[in-house]
Amino acid sequence: MSELRRDPILGRWVILAPERAGRPTDFSTRVEPPEEGGLCPFCPGNERHTPHEILAYRPAGGRPGDDSWSVRVFPNRYPALRVEGELDREGHGIYDKMSGIGAHEVIVETRRHGARLGELPPGEIAQLLAAWRDRMLDLRQDSRLRSILVFKNQGQAAGATLEHSHSQLIALPILPRQVMAEMAGARAYFDQKERCIFCDIVRQERKEGVRVAYENDGFVTLAPWAPRIPFETWLVPKAHASGYEEEPPSRLAGLADALGETLRRLDRALDRPAFNLMLHTGPLNERSLAHYHWHIEIMPILGRVGGFEWGSGFYINPTPPEEAAEFLRKSGAG
Amino acid sequence: MSELRRDPILGRWVILAPERAGRPTDFSTRVEPPEEGGLCPFCPGNERHTPHEILAYRPAGGRPGDDSWSVRVFPNRYPALRVEGELDREGHGIYDKMSGIGAHEVIVETRRHGARLGELPPGEIAQLLAAWRDRMLDLRQDSRLRSILVFKNQGQAAGATLEHSHSQLIALPILPRQVMAEMAGARAYFDQKERCIFCDIVRQERKEGVRVAYENDGFVTLAPWAPRIPFETWLVPKAHASGYEEEPPSRLAGLADALGETLRRLDRALDRPAFNLMLHTGPLNERSLAHYHWHIEIMPILGRVGGFEWGSGFYINPTPPEEAAEFLRKSGAG
Repeated sequence: MSELRRDPILGRWVILAPERAGRPTDFSTRVEPPEEGGLCPFCPGNERHTPHEILAYRPAGGRPGDDSWSVRVFPNRYPALRVEGELDREGHGIYDKMSGIGAHEVIVETRRHGARLGELPPGEIAQLLAAWRDRMLDLRQDSRLRSILVFKNQGQAAGATLEHSHSQLIALPILPRQVMAEMAGARAYFDQKERCIFCDIVRQERKEGVRVAYENDGFVTLAPWAPRIPFETWLVPKAHASGYEEEPPSRLAGLADALGETLRRLDRALDRPAFNLMLHTGPLNERSLAHYHWHIEIMPILGRVGGFEWGSGFYINPTPPEEAAEFLRKSGAG
Repeated sequence: MSELRRDPILGRWVILAPERAGRPTDFSTRVEPPEEGGLCPFCPGNERHTPHEILAYRPAGGRPGDDSWSVRVFPNRYPALRVEGELDREGHGIYDKMSGIGAHEVIVETRRHGARLGELPPGEIAQLLAAWRDRMLDLRQDSRLRSILVFKNQGQAAGATLEHSHSQLIALPILPRQVMAEMAGARAYFDQKERCIFCDIVRQERKEGVRVAYENDGFVTLAPWAPRIPFETWLVPKAHASGYEEEPPSRLAGLADALGETLRRLDRALDRPAFNLMLHTGPLNERSLAHYHWHIEIMPILGRVGGFEWGSGFYINPTPPEEAAEFLRKSGAG
C-alpha cells in the first residue's frame, strides 16, 4: 500500500510507492512492465497481458474485451495509487501523511505500435481526447478525489518505458503543489483585475503574434513568455473553461487538430523529440471557475535539467520563445 | 545580454540566455567549454584557459595567478548573468522582464582531476566551504542582488559537462520561486508556532532516529520525511542560522566532516552516483531570520523524472526515506 506524505515546509505531497523491496541496486521508478520477447502488452490481441479493461472505444459490432478497440484504458500494472481502501489521514509529530487512495490508469492511444501521437489521424486523436474526458467525468464522482493529472511521456528520455503510444492518468486525494500554485497565481490576478489571466495571455499573444506557433478556430499554440526549456509549448483554448472535462464533445475535433498539428511541428522542428505532455486542469470539486483556464503544456526533452533548476525552480533557457515559435510556424506542412 | 522573464501565473523567473544563435539543431544548455584534446581548463597549469581569477586560496609563497592554488574561482565562460550593466526592469503588456544582471561563477574544488568531492581530505572540503562563504560575503555588498544559489552538478547525468570537480554560484536580482516558497512555508510555520520548522525537524529526526543517516556535533544528515526521489538527502546544521554566509569559519570544519561523510556514504551505497547538490540559504538582504534555516539538499540521479513530476511538482518515489537512511547508516566506513 502506498502512502502520501507532505513536505512540512513547502506543502509538497509525494507518493511513497514501495511496490517492491527497495534494494539499493534497483531504484527503478518503472511503473509498467517491460517489453520482453517482442510482446507488446498494448498491441491489439494482447489484451490479456494488461489489467482489466476500464474503458474502450470499439466500432459497431465490437464486443467488450475483444481486440477491435481503437482506444483502451486499464489500471497501471504497478499503480502508485489504488481506488480500494479507506482514505486515512494521520499526523506524525510535525509531519502529515495519508493513505495512497486514488487511481493510476494507462490510456493506449492507438492500435498501431510505433505510431507517434502526432501521426494519428485527427479522428483518432479526438477519440483519445474523449477518453481523457470520459475517465475524468467518471472519476470525479468519487468524492475522495480532488484532482486529476493526465500526462504523457513520449520516449525513453522523457521517462517512457514502453514504446507503444500511451498516456497516463493519476487521480489524487490532494491538490499537488504545482496545481495549487497555478490556481493561487491565477486567483490573485483575477482578484486584482476581474479577468482570467489565461484569457489575457491568449489576447496579448494573438495581438503580438510573435510567440504564436499555430492557431485554429478554437485553440492557440504558443511559446510561453517565460519558457523553462527550449521549445516549451502551451496549447490554450480561446474560450474560457476551467475544467477540461467540462468541454463539450463538439470542441474536441478542434483540439485534436491543434494538438496533432502542434506535435507534428515539434516532430519536424526537433526531429521527433522525446517530450512530456501535461494537461493542466482545475480541481475536480471546483467547477466553472472564472479565474482558471485549462490548457496543455508540452516539454520537449532536448537537454538535461541540472542542479540549478532542481534546487531553485529557476531555469536557464538559451532559446527565446519568439525564436522557437517562429521555427514552429515555419515547420507547418509546406 | 541575457534577460530575466517572469511567468505571469506562477511568478517563476527564467533566464533567457541566448549566448549564441538558437539554431534548432543545437539546443545545448552548456555553460562551460568542453574538454578537448585532453586539456582540462580546471587543472593546475591551465589557468590561462579560464576567465580571470576572482578568488583563490594558495599556500604561503604562492602568487596571484600561479598554479599553486587549492581552490579557485572565476566567472563562468558562458555566463547566464553578468555583473556589468544597469538593472532595467520593464513591463511588456501583462508580462514583466528585467535585464540579466547578476553573477555566474565557477568554483574549482580541487587540484586533482578526477577526484570526487567526497574523496577530498576534510581540510580541502573545508576550503571549498570557505570559498562559497567568501564569495557570498563579497557579492552581498552589491545591493542589486537578492539571492545566491550555490550548486554542484556531479556527473553527466546531473548536467555536468566537465569532469574536474567544481561547483557553481549564481547571484540573482530576484528571489527564485522555490526560495520564495520555502521562505513562505517556513514563515507560516513560525507565525503559528514561534519556532523554526527546520529546528523542529532536527529535533524530531534526532529523537526518532530512523531517517538520520549521519550526525556529528554540529550537523545532521537525514533522509527527509517526504523525499522527491530515492536517496534525496538533506544536511542541516543543528544550530539555527538563516544565512550560510553568517556561519562562523570555525564551524566549517564540522560541516566539511558531515558533507564528506555524507557524500562518501552515497558513493558507497549507490556506486558513485551522479548527483545535484544545492545550498538553500536565506535572501541576501534579509539576515538573521528567526524562521529560516540554511541547509544543503543532495539529489542523487538514479532514474528519470517523467512528465508527471514535471507538470505537477508531485513525485512518485519507490524508496521510503527510512530505508534509504538505514542503508546510508550501514554504508559508513566499516
